Amino acid sequence: MQTAAAAAALAAATDLVGYATYLDRVPHRPGQTRHASDNRVELDRARHALSLAAAGREVAVVSSGDPGVFAMASAVFEAVDHGGPAWRALDIIVVPGVSAMLAAAARLGAPLGHDFCVLSLSDNLKPFEIVLARIAAAASAGFVIALYNAASRARPWQLGAAFDALRPILPAATPVALATAISRDDERVEVTTLLDVDPARADMRTLVLVGTAATRRIDRDGAAPWLYTPRFHPAAT
Amino acid sequence: MQTAAAAAALAAATDLVGYATYLDRVPHRPGQTRHASDNRVELDRARHALSLAAAGREVAVVSSGDPGVFAMASAVFEAVDHGGPAWRALDIIVVPGVSAMLAAAARLGAPLGHDFCVLSLSDNLKPFEIVLARIAAAASAGFVIALYNAASRARPWQLGAAFDALRPILPAATPVALATAISRDDERVEVTTLLDVDPARADMRTLVLVGTAATRRIDRDGAAPWLYTPRFHPAAT
Repeated sequence: MQTAAAAAALAAATDLVGYATYLDRVPHRPGQTRHASDNRVELDRARHALSLAAAGREVAVVSSGDPGVFAMASAVFEAVDHGGPAWRALDIIVVPGVSAMLAAAARLGAPLGHDFCVLSLSDNLKPFEIVLARIAAAASAGFVIALYNAASRARPWQLGAAFDALRPILPAATPVALATAISRDDERVEVTTLLDVDPARADMRTLVLVGTAATRRIDRDGAAPWLYTPRFHPAAT
Repeated sequence: MQTAAAAAALAAATDLVGYATYLDRVPHRPGQTRHASDNRVELDRARHALSLAAAGREVAVVSSGDPGVFAMASAVFEAVDHGGPAWRALDIIVVPGVSAMLAAAARLGAPLGHDFCVLSLSDNLKPFEIVLARIAAAASAGFVIALYNAASRARPWQLGAAFDALRPILPAATPVALATAISRDDERVEVTTLLDVDPARADMRTLVLVGTAATRRIDRDGAAPWLYTPRFHPAAT
């Protein structure tokens, strides 16, 4: 689900900077230099990219999904903000993309059809009590919830704690979807409820969607159900 | 900012259904029939598309941005939900896209770099007191806010009321951006603050972004400032 603008930016670059797994998805071009790094070193990677650009290179920082949503764009501007004046003078263009929540929602129907909130469950960058308070506030206010970074080996219990925080607020039948590796060969989508969801079914490639009391499930013969959240609020009908 | 999948779906269709303004952006193809409709008749348009598909046509329902975010996908599934069994048996594929908030955020830097909420300000489909309560809940919980359908001739005062609701919650210097007609020829981006923002500068093509107390502005010589919201919560540093 790459846009033409993203493909053009990748093709025009002299240097590609990114997490190795994402760089591996970019076709090789002669003369182009690749700078692969591990996950979770976003700020170092951003500074490296800015240093190359300041030295006159044409650099593409590679993300999956949309670079502005829990990806590299914020790290790049954080590095600029705390860096020297030369980095502010660079021509930095963010090429938007199809964020994982949109790709996952499209597979499911239209679960993001009403107001929604988008959170990272990662507690590397914020205390987990803040995460839980935000999830509770979002559900109480009637927002659908999209969760990024829902699970990993380093984050084994947080998703279960998030569901536990939602259970006193939302009906047990509230639809929940686990969308894993969307648009990859091993894509997997599971539709369940807040009562039944098993957090162990999520891994680091899973986008989690939690509906509201209004989110509807359309069952079908011989096919996965569709989910959608109606555009209207019950009080408006 | 169209994906290859969207272009392929448009090319394969025998019938295009959509709001006239969006249909006009799709290149004409011989043998393809266009069914243009006015704005704000989403459910009628969805039923028309489903009827055509049930009659054996290959139908593309055209949206701008992402069809799942305040666009046609939810109306299509609402029509299916309340329609007959034949519509459930249709092969309905939602092709995700770059939603306006992502396109706007990319132009500005990385304002959606931390947890955020996405709301429609339209009070056609929900009472405006619900809109205000959600905006207040989102800001109080520390979410960046993206507002769709922020203003129109039929909706002249609601955006000002939304800013008024935010002023007791967020600092006066909180960055606010008005991003109008992004990626069109007359694209316009304005960066201001919650204290100074003039709601009359927004129209029906404007996506409004309201930062948090943590959102940073990077000023530059001879260029528009960048905005970004740091990935980390202050309590985690």
